[in-house]
Amino acid sequence: MEHELQQTMSLLARTPAALNALLRDLPEAWMLGDEGENTWSPFDIVVHLIHAEHTDWMPRARMILQFGESRTFEPFDRLGQMRESRGRPPGQLLDEFARLRSESLSELGALQIGQEELELRGRHPALGVVTLSQLLATWAVHDLTHLHQISRVMANQYRDAVGPWSAYLGVLQCGGHG
Amino acid sequence: MEHELQQTMSLLARTPAALNALLRDLPEAWMLGDEGENTWSPFDIVVHLIHAEHTDWMPRARMILQFGESRTFEPFDRLGQMRESRGRPPGQLLDEFARLRSESLSELGALQIGQEELELRGRHPALGVVTLSQLLATWAVHDLTHLHQISRVMANQYRDAVGPWSAYLGVLQCGGHG
Repeated sequence: MEHELQQTMSLLARTPAALNALLRDLPEAWMLGDEGENTWSPFDIVVHLIHAEHTDWMPRARMILQFGESRTFEPFDRLGQMRESRGRPPGQLLDEFARLRSESLSELGALQIGQEELELRGRHPALGVVTLSQLLATWAVHDLTHLHQISRVMANQYRDAVGPWSAYLGVLQCGGHG
Repeated sequence: MEHELQQTMSLLARTPAALNALLRDLPEAWMLGDEGENTWSPFDIVVHLIHAEHTDWMPRARMILQFGESRTFEPFDRLGQMRESRGRPPGQLLDEFARLRSESLSELGALQIGQEELELRGRHPALGVVTLSQLLATWAVHDLTHLHQISRVMANQYRDAVGPWSAYLGVLQCGGHG
């Protein structure tokens, strides 16, 4: 499947509503349960998505459009905002993520990106040269990575509760690749 | 985390809305794209969830309550309804799943299941003796398994599009455990 910007944007637009449907008013045992030390709960994952919305996707897209390969992206801090977000109401985080995503997509739409712009190149601090097309496709797959992770983290809370069925439930075999 | 029926029901109630937010009116390339021969698309997964709602969860719960270990569950056909559902409008499937799940939860709620009933035992054709508590917890984790799978199947459509970022995207490392 080729990268098509309209398809990418249609997925990016869905993620806040999907997370809202899954997580809003979820019992704390699911929302705050993680997979052990230095792992993330669904709450932590929403904080991470908010942080990425602030510092990763549109800032990097703007940098490619303005500076091309001549300027290297700021490294992305995977643990950004984790500490200062502890204790915030989960519903407030979901609202904030939805608002930021909506703003990002408005800005992206206004840029009127066509095939020529998609091929523009930027410089990633570790991966080297990347294209705007790859950045935008990665944004969508990053959403899916964290939906994949949330479903696994939640399932793991019931690892014992399912008894012998654990052998049949694929999500419980997931080694935790994020 | 102990199995608590209210928590299980709160998750079961969320799944149709989460799938609706993620999949309704999704471009066909995402909705119908699978991972190769004999693998499932998001469309197929919704068909499977509908089939499970008809033949698996509440029928087995009723069987435990009525017959205990004396009667073995019907084996569950993982490929049930796949063929006859081809070509149906995806939105219609999402509606049907939401309706069936709502009916299942109404029936489950009306049973007024308490701790005593949760410990009742039934007989699985392959796993042997299981409890009603394990069956209901499995129902919720089965939802999560398929949300996990949908996010992976969708991400895989963009495996090439993300370029060198594929190394960082956990969902693309998922070996496909369902």
